[in-house]
Amino acid sequence: MTETLLPVYREGPLLRLLDQRLLPANEVWLTLDKTSEVAIAIREMAVRGAPSIGVAAAYGAAFAMRSGSTTSPAERFETARNVLAATRPTAVNLFAALGRVERRFRESAEKPPEEIERVLIAEADAIAEEALDSSRRLGRHGAELLAADSTVLTHCNAGALATGGYGSALGIIRAAVESGKIVRVLAPETRPFLQGSRLTAWELARDGIPVEVITDGMSGHYLSRGDVAAVVVGADRIAANGDTANKIGTYTHAVLAKENGVPFYVAAPTSTIDLACPDGTRIPIEERSPAEVLSFAGHPTAPAGVGARHPAFDVTPARYISAIVTEEGICRPPYETSLAEAVLAAERRRAG
Amino acid sequence: MTETLLPVYREGPLLRLLDQRLLPANEVWLTLDKTSEVAIAIREMAVRGAPSIGVAAAYGAAFAMRSGSTTSPAERFETARNVLAATRPTAVNLFAALGRVERRFRESAEKPPEEIERVLIAEADAIAEEALDSSRRLGRHGAELLAADSTVLTHCNAGALATGGYGSALGIIRAAVESGKIVRVLAPETRPFLQGSRLTAWELARDGIPVEVITDGMSGHYLSRGDVAAVVVGADRIAANGDTANKIGTYTHAVLAKENGVPFYVAAPTSTIDLACPDGTRIPIEERSPAEVLSFAGHPTAPAGVGARHPAFDVTPARYISAIVTEEGICRPPYETSLAEAVLAAERRRAG
Repeated sequence: MTETLLPVYREGPLLRLLDQRLLPANEVWLTLDKTSEVAIAIREMAVRGAPSIGVAAAYGAAFAMRSGSTTSPAERFETARNVLAATRPTAVNLFAALGRVERRFRESAEKPPEEIERVLIAEADAIAEEALDSSRRLGRHGAELLAADSTVLTHCNAGALATGGYGSALGIIRAAVESGKIVRVLAPETRPFLQGSRLTAWELARDGIPVEVITDGMSGHYLSRGDVAAVVVGADRIAANGDTANKIGTYTHAVLAKENGVPFYVAAPTSTIDLACPDGTRIPIEERSPAEVLSFAGHPTAPAGVGARHPAFDVTPARYISAIVTEEGICRPPYETSLAEAVLAAERRRAG
Repeated sequence: MTETLLPVYREGPLLRLLDQRLLPANEVWLTLDKTSEVAIAIREMAVRGAPSIGVAAAYGAAFAMRSGSTTSPAERFETARNVLAATRPTAVNLFAALGRVERRFRESAEKPPEEIERVLIAEADAIAEEALDSSRRLGRHGAELLAADSTVLTHCNAGALATGGYGSALGIIRAAVESGKIVRVLAPETRPFLQGSRLTAWELARDGIPVEVITDGMSGHYLSRGDVAAVVVGADRIAANGDTANKIGTYTHAVLAKENGVPFYVAAPTSTIDLACPDGTRIPIEERSPAEVLSFAGHPTAPAGVGARHPAFDVTPARYISAIVTEEGICRPPYETSLAEAVLAAERRRAG
């Protein structure tokens, strides 16, 4: 293993972000110190992946306290929270992180702005540390699900880049490899942003884990031939009943896995579980620009004037999910109880 | 409707081919008069789609007679047949067309080369005419399957470009529109070659039929939401039991259609049915270069050194197929009998 990749971290008063749009060709680190910069980085997907978005948003909210404007800290915080909350609707970690920072703000709202900033930065630091720690513990739990020598299909990038370090789906694969298992990965490229070929392949190759890229339409072929032992994906929001929103294409792999008797696992920290959301029909699905589907690297892929659709996520109903792996352990159906227990365990752990 | 598009046609002694690699940005017509040129055009996918490949190969075999070499017509024909048969393994129309031309060659092998060429060109002309005629008749049969106002999902390009004119899957859509029905098309882009976004969207937009492009991973999302009334795809080879090889990703759409109660139709002329092939396990699946998966328009999509896999086709088992539409009518399960009857009907029609 090479050194741990931290895609979003604080360096003194600054937030450093690895620009995920430019990988794998270029490793460019952004340096941000304003709320608006962080909001743009999230919306434009310089940072992506539910837990990484949560970490970035927490720092973005804290940065609002350093504004030189004459408005009150409360007004500044409110504006920052709204701007950040409007960036991307599906990943619940964004709202969970903003909620945590908001509670700290309320506790310290009467203090001087510099002091509030210190408190909020400390909370953002805690969110970042917990994200990395959750990935490592989640990985160890999930590694038990993989056979000693197996090929795993994943989707998109649920790796270090997405989770503030180590990874959820890729964290399970990393932990399995660290425990001595042989794991080969099939990575669907994940159009239109190619997080599979650009990011997952880059991360795994960096760690020396064997990975091969396939197009998104090939998963059924390999699942039907018995070439895949397990499917492991991340999540952007998990409803109380286990229905899971994740990158568009996830539902397709889930149906194909079930049809071919292959276990389908979701890997996500408890911060991705939204107990207030009863089921998948209540999860807002972000619609992004059709232009992103109609081009690649600036090249149009379709005739001028032809339209496209671009839902960024889909919902996989709980009945297709064999287990949901969290940092508190492996949740099995019925998810209504197992997910609530995992969230409670995480709250107890944080309460100390 | 605009004028009928004929992607492969004879102009005097020359074969003209619309180079499908350059669409939709450029409409470049190739002019070929040598067997080797035709073989390269098939292998490199300037011409693609099972029936179009068959038409091109028939002319390619005929062109062997005009070689200036000193070898005998029999030797020249044998070499040409082998070179053309080695271009692409999955589409059975290639082998069916070569078989038809070979029978004509055997009947006329003792004649002067110019006369043999004339006979073989006439047979290639007949194959081309039958391909276009089959598409039109197939389309009329299949149009009955579509509701008066519906959204249809297709895959890859089973249009005029693929079938020597009019189209098989797109032929059904065209015939439905000509009969007054309102049909909207969802076209998965079909990575890695993007036949959906480049070719299907181009053909349909040219005819004024509403089409929207999606990525290959989005079909499940729309099928699960009840937004798709039917899936209609083409075929490269149909086994005697109905198992169907078609562009990679087809099996994925078929499983998702069945899971969501949406009918899944295969559209193909009887020349695509291979009664000598008992089931899908016997269909050879072409493996193309991984480099084609790892790049787009010359841009690498993955880090250097990462591998990929590239099966060009997959096999959809017959149990996922609601009906197979041929120029002789609609075949329903059990396919062992309905497909054999359709092939027999086509033979009787040709015999006059």
